Amino acid sequence: MAETKKTQMLDTAVSTRIRLARNLANYPFPHRMTAEQKEAVVREVTDALFSANKTIGQTFHATKIADMPQAEALYLVEQHLISPEFAETPDGVVLRDDSGTVSIMLNEEDHIRIQVVLPGAALDEAMETANRIDDLLDEKLRYAFDERLGYLTQCPTNLGTGLRASVMVHLPVLTDQRAIGSLSAALSKLGMTVRGIYGEGSEARGKMYQISNQVTLGLSEQEAVESLKTVVAQVMEQEAQAREKVFAASPAAFDRVCRALGTLQYARLLSGEEFMELVSDVRMGLCAGALEGMTPGDVDQLIAQAQPATILHRLGRNLSAQERDRERADFVRAAVRSVQPAE
Amino acid sequence: MAETKKTQMLDTAVSTRIRLARNLANYPFPHRMTAEQKEAVVREVTDALFSANKTIGQTFHATKIADMPQAEALYLVEQHLISPEFAETPDGVVLRDDSGTVSIMLNEEDHIRIQVVLPGAALDEAMETANRIDDLLDEKLRYAFDERLGYLTQCPTNLGTGLRASVMVHLPVLTDQRAIGSLSAALSKLGMTVRGIYGEGSEARGKMYQISNQVTLGLSEQEAVESLKTVVAQVMEQEAQAREKVFAASPAAFDRVCRALGTLQYARLLSGEEFMELVSDVRMGLCAGALEGMTPGDVDQLIAQAQPATILHRLGRNLSAQERDRERADFVRAAVRSVQPAE
Repeated sequence: MAETKKTQMLDTAVSTRIRLARNLANYPFPHRMTAEQKEAVVREVTDALFSANKTIGQTFHATKIADMPQAEALYLVEQHLISPEFAETPDGVVLRDDSGTVSIMLNEEDHIRIQVVLPGAALDEAMETANRIDDLLDEKLRYAFDERLGYLTQCPTNLGTGLRASVMVHLPVLTDQRAIGSLSAALSKLGMTVRGIYGEGSEARGKMYQISNQVTLGLSEQEAVESLKTVVAQVMEQEAQAREKVFAASPAAFDRVCRALGTLQYARLLSGEEFMELVSDVRMGLCAGALEGMTPGDVDQLIAQAQPATILHRLGRNLSAQERDRERADFVRAAVRSVQPAE
Repeated sequence: MAETKKTQMLDTAVSTRIRLARNLANYPFPHRMTAEQKEAVVREVTDALFSANKTIGQTFHATKIADMPQAEALYLVEQHLISPEFAETPDGVVLRDDSGTVSIMLNEEDHIRIQVVLPGAALDEAMETANRIDDLLDEKLRYAFDERLGYLTQCPTNLGTGLRASVMVHLPVLTDQRAIGSLSAALSKLGMTVRGIYGEGSEARGKMYQISNQVTLGLSEQEAVESLKTVVAQVMEQEAQAREKVFAASPAAFDRVCRALGTLQYARLLSGEEFMELVSDVRMGLCAGALEGMTPGDVDQLIAQAQPATILHRLGRNLSAQERDRERADFVRAAVRSVQPAE
């Protein structure tokens, strides 16, 4: 039972993201740079990466946003590998590794933004990967660094560690119970923020939230990550307890997750919005042990694959809105075919 | 193809009802009768029926409404074997035959109301059964009959033939297209009415309607039945054509019937109202050939079995509203398990 509970609690975590902001000492920040300077930054960083005498550097490939089909750029946004703003930056260059979990945005808000995205709760692992890339670049480049302040960044909110660590959590029950507002207020006092699925300014879709550290100055990366881990564990435990109560209280919760499954298994047209609502219920049902035949991690992969630009990217052609809804319904139906109520 | 179309059109008909109103010459109408007179009428009619030298009379059994559990009376209403008003008439007596398709209400609005309810479009067959019982009673009893007017009834709208013939039809597409109002207006000019599923004053549930003759004076039973048959065939054809267009026009209709099926196959709680909406869609899907694994006639049986009092009657005990919704969901889920989209 204790084992099950632990697993169920961890299921609440969807993914982990580490982002390190770095700048080169010998250039102005990107918003003040000339086109030539931007190109020079791209050259310096890519040279540093590709010439590195370590395997990690060899697995990357560089693409300029301007050279990508728009669907591909939007697909990278949906996979959280680049920011929505960066997708609109023609002279931005993204370095991606083969695993699809690491990206480096060049000339976004800062010269260098190293990003690692891993499934589940994996702060230590993600931090380790980010640090390896950071060290590798640090060997060859001269970072803008101040002994007292730490890493210098364009926006003062990133000054110091340049680190933003975040865990995406699925909080369906707390959302239904309208507990996210007070949770957010409490976390803000601890220097953490709670945001919707696509980061700042976007609404929570599928009842998924990013919990991230806000403080970058006056503490170490390790301290920031440790306090985030503690907070996320508490939030996940809160969700798990609330979920247990809701499923024990009445058959309505079981009915709801079963119905969501039924619709996903039978719908022939499925909008992105409705999909997110229903798949959130199905994920909750799997976490609660009310449904079986798929892991919450499988659901998270399905969610990523069913996003609009990701569908277009996979098919390699444009679709009308209805064609896309049909494509999504077909894809989702096949993916959830073997899920069944646990009875 | 012509064959298929014919079948699909006929599927629109849910059930057929014949009702004959008769009164005995030597008693006042029920609303002016004493308790003794009512008892005398019951005695006369049951004696006539049970003493009849024909098998049909022997298959009936009599029950006084006052002697029935309320759930049983409501169950008979749901099965269209007695009227809602009659279920509230303690001294009313109902004679039912073993087949569950024939009933005789004694001391409802008239002394005798012979009712035959058959699945599908079966006006001739139902009329024949009603006539056999009518003849059998006529042999032994003295009906209130006027050579010029015909059978005398308490309400002048039944005077003449005393016949109400009706066909229950399922008109989901015409309902969605808001065509029932104009259909009803057109039929009223032909002396027909269109009503919701439980007759006068009740709303259409599950997009099912009774089309019935209104005129009882100045035409024969046969004429009334023939003109009803013609009208019903036209309405069914109209629905079938509209349905064909809707399913050909876009995948939305297919999506809708699949979703309805998904919910019925997965819901754990199902209100009567939601069930009627969803099962109407599933029935439409079966009629359109979009779903398979069950006949529209099976659906009609399921509808009858999933009505609230019928559930209580079957279980033989009282249930809370939520227990009933759970019972309905379980029953329906098992019944539609083998239905699948036709692809």
